[in-house]
Amino acid sequence: MMNTPLTMTQMIRRAEKYFPKKQVISRTAKGIQRFTYKEIGERTRRLADALQKLGVERGDKVGTLAWTHHRHLEAYFAIPCSGAVLHTINIRLSPQHITYIINHAEDQVLLIDSDILPLIERCAEHLKTVKAFVIMTDEDELPETTLAPVYHYEKLLADANPSYEYPDDIDENTPAGMCYTSATTGNPKGVVYSHRGIYLHSMALGMADSAAVSEKDIALPVVPMFHVNAWGLPFASVWFGTTLVLPGPYFTPKLIAELIEQEKVTITAGVPTIWLGLLKELDEGNYDMSSLRAILCGGSAAPRGMIQAFEQKHKIPFMHAYGMTETSPLVVISTFKSYQEQLTDEEKLDIKAKQGILVPGLEMKVIGKDGEVAWDGKEMGELTIRGPWIASEYYKDERTEEGFRDGWLYTGDVVTVDEEGFVKIVDRTKDLIKSGGEWISSVDLENALMAHEAVFEAAVVAVPHEQWQERPVACVVLKDSYIGKTTKEELREFLAPQFAKWWLPDEILFLKEIPKTSVGKFLKRALRDSVHEELRQKN
Amino acid sequence: MMNTPLTMTQMIRRAEKYFPKKQVISRTAKGIQRFTYKEIGERTRRLADALQKLGVERGDKVGTLAWTHHRHLEAYFAIPCSGAVLHTINIRLSPQHITYIINHAEDQVLLIDSDILPLIERCAEHLKTVKAFVIMTDEDELPETTLAPVYHYEKLLADANPSYEYPDDIDENTPAGMCYTSATTGNPKGVVYSHRGIYLHSMALGMADSAAVSEKDIALPVVPMFHVNAWGLPFASVWFGTTLVLPGPYFTPKLIAELIEQEKVTITAGVPTIWLGLLKELDEGNYDMSSLRAILCGGSAAPRGMIQAFEQKHKIPFMHAYGMTETSPLVVISTFKSYQEQLTDEEKLDIKAKQGILVPGLEMKVIGKDGEVAWDGKEMGELTIRGPWIASEYYKDERTEEGFRDGWLYTGDVVTVDEEGFVKIVDRTKDLIKSGGEWISSVDLENALMAHEAVFEAAVVAVPHEQWQERPVACVVLKDSYIGKTTKEELREFLAPQFAKWWLPDEILFLKEIPKTSVGKFLKRALRDSVHEELRQKN
Repeated sequence: MMNTPLTMTQMIRRAEKYFPKKQVISRTAKGIQRFTYKEIGERTRRLADALQKLGVERGDKVGTLAWTHHRHLEAYFAIPCSGAVLHTINIRLSPQHITYIINHAEDQVLLIDSDILPLIERCAEHLKTVKAFVIMTDEDELPETTLAPVYHYEKLLADANPSYEYPDDIDENTPAGMCYTSATTGNPKGVVYSHRGIYLHSMALGMADSAAVSEKDIALPVVPMFHVNAWGLPFASVWFGTTLVLPGPYFTPKLIAELIEQEKVTITAGVPTIWLGLLKELDEGNYDMSSLRAILCGGSAAPRGMIQAFEQKHKIPFMHAYGMTETSPLVVISTFKSYQEQLTDEEKLDIKAKQGILVPGLEMKVIGKDGEVAWDGKEMGELTIRGPWIASEYYKDERTEEGFRDGWLYTGDVVTVDEEGFVKIVDRTKDLIKSGGEWISSVDLENALMAHEAVFEAAVVAVPHEQWQERPVACVVLKDSYIGKTTKEELREFLAPQFAKWWLPDEILFLKEIPKTSVGKFLKRALRDSVHEELRQKN
Repeated sequence: MMNTPLTMTQMIRRAEKYFPKKQVISRTAKGIQRFTYKEIGERTRRLADALQKLGVERGDKVGTLAWTHHRHLEAYFAIPCSGAVLHTINIRLSPQHITYIINHAEDQVLLIDSDILPLIERCAEHLKTVKAFVIMTDEDELPETTLAPVYHYEKLLADANPSYEYPDDIDENTPAGMCYTSATTGNPKGVVYSHRGIYLHSMALGMADSAAVSEKDIALPVVPMFHVNAWGLPFASVWFGTTLVLPGPYFTPKLIAELIEQEKVTITAGVPTIWLGLLKELDEGNYDMSSLRAILCGGSAAPRGMIQAFEQKHKIPFMHAYGMTETSPLVVISTFKSYQEQLTDEEKLDIKAKQGILVPGLEMKVIGKDGEVAWDGKEMGELTIRGPWIASEYYKDERTEEGFRDGWLYTGDVVTVDEEGFVKIVDRTKDLIKSGGEWISSVDLENALMAHEAVFEAAVVAVPHEQWQERPVACVVLKDSYIGKTTKEELREFLAPQFAKWWLPDEILFLKEIPKTSVGKFLKRALRDSVHEELRQKN
């Protein structure tokens, strides 16, 4: 066979050549703009040329601090296709962490949305490698800034070569992108994606038995482009000529609902908190969601009640999935096997509440106390994964040793596997509650609580216990209309028939909100500390 | 990213582990048998062990001379997954050619269907490398044969290890399979498939915008397993847990129709002559074909009239595609772009009559007289292709130089490309008729003739001409009920309004049948010789 490399260059070339009329719909500070793939293709070539003129060489890292819009999409291809490395930076991290990762990655150039400038200005004096700041603004003039040297994105493009040719000698194992993931303690850890990994992951997203991303789709990545490449949707969409709807900065559930209705979105992707917000919006407003063929949900476990509301009340197919920064991210996805189509709605909902089945191309092992666990839906173990779009290390980081052993990624997620091979995330190894030598799943308790009509959100954490080592405590946010009405006793009675007695939380606390990470996951560590402190003061 | 290799081992492992209950339905001499993937998985491990015990080592070639059935499927995985090379031999070739390719490939072991024994017995004395003959028979005892040493397939399996472990250190570029393709002159030419190529080609078959092969499918490869790996369908189907229906030896259109109806086949694949036969059967019989979501058709151009009959009369979606032995084979496939869905039935039929659009992962150039042709649906050029599942050479063959240049495969097929990038095969470079310095497409004339209600098959060939260099002559097979009724003049009048005058055939000959190659394509060279001879005698 030919040894043609698996690189991203052909993705953007294919969009330009085969789908010049298809559109990218981009929301920026100025409002909604529409570009054809012909235009995006040319602008991407211009950007690649402009970056080269700024001195970016092969292997150099170029950082982005940006929302989800067309300029960020251009950076997604211009940087790797010219041989450099796209480093998407999570703008929700602290200035300290952002400074750390820019220095650690040794970014040469930063592409920055104008509203994110103040954040970078606070980091600027500590940045050691950045030679140029490019501001992505809709305005004709640059905003005032203390950064230097600064460039205007659109002016750079205007002066650049629209016929820039991508190099055709990029090896498929060349780094194409990188993304840092928060660690429980210490600095964020960097993950490097290769051209080959992104190529294969995109194919996996396009497979009929996976997300089936297609030219016929209109895809809205709500998951931000600074978070695990918006789960790879922009890469797959450009390759397949899929219409992209990019929701820009500071969107609300209302805006998402409106975009879905107006643009006839067929597939959208995001974390459970986004969908909880959308659900509330749909319950209150009046929207036509009939174009949607799939809400793709990952990042953390989606509560069964939420899935049920989307599927049965709003008739929107819900597609649970699981992955992480280290896995590009797609690992398992919830699609039925043919013979499961005949199950009852309740049985199907049970399957949909699991994260799903391993996509073709990957291998998994679930390691319990005594080696691989049985596929019985009960025995718990840590999920380990291997495959061509799974990271093999943390970038220049000693913590590689913890996460990667014998060629397998140890995810830190505790799961069960049922008889059909469907994976269910039980907990983070660190969040499992160890009570009297047995394990209690905080996620199971949370999902049960969130199925109660009064509960908006719930998080369960461990508190230390003399006799039992650890005991569960539930933190509950009630829906507005139930505040002051629903009692702890009512919730306890609701849980009682569903669990063994020793699983039930020792305490239920009502909070105004659950602290969350920069990507919308429960911040369990902070919650644990504050709960621990509150109970200590109480006693 | 991890450097886990793209190998076939995980395909069969995935079927065993995730789809143990799914079925392979296999028709052999004895009738229809059903196996689960659990059983197929175990039998495949046994076969790998048995071959190793017969002395097959890594890199050794193992030939198969077999129809499309479960034992052949087992060989499809046992051989490459143990590090050897699956060499599928076209049983329709002459004994001379079969002898040549077995010796040229240096096959160590041959797996042979019992009804094919007489063919191999005629070759046996000339075979230089074969150390063992394994007979794939349903009977308890071996048939009488002059071959030695011979082994009974089922007895080898009975004595072998059902828990054989595939090696896990196979490099993805290791040869996995090979197939010889007929040449216009001289011996057949060998193409070697790597694990990586088969893996990526299988992913391509599973993509939503391609054939979308899925676990939910029930796939019937009518194209034989000795012909370009039955277009890769067995590999993709096993990987994705697709139900496979394997039609066995000596099937008729009636049998294919019955299998589709009884097993609720969703996708089937084969060459146009197969579908012409099926169409006749459907017109005469009464079958329920409602389970079919796609008839995949390649190998040569499908006549527009036939596509129309399937789509409009029988409501069966027809999916044109193009590929060749050198391309694994999938290259282009006919699926609509989203905005083409709104076209009229007639316009859609025009698109379906083209072979389709390039699948993601490949690149193409169409080279005309003055470099790359315009995408205008008119300018003709030779199709050249590049990509990770395209062969880079003919195995140990000087003819590599003709077919492969500057990293591109020169297909020898003349095509046009329309404004949307859809490829239409105009002719083989060798079959184009060069009349007065211009090109006439034999395929266009054939399709026009086959759209006439009286015509069953038509082939158009060039005959030498003093003044014009070459002129077209049409060879027509009439449907039984039209023989003696439809005249040459009638056909000539039917063609006249559709073509420029100088395109019209100088002569129309009625034949009883069109000679075909071993894989059902028109044998133009033989036809040209006999037509030339007939016209010479006539004048």
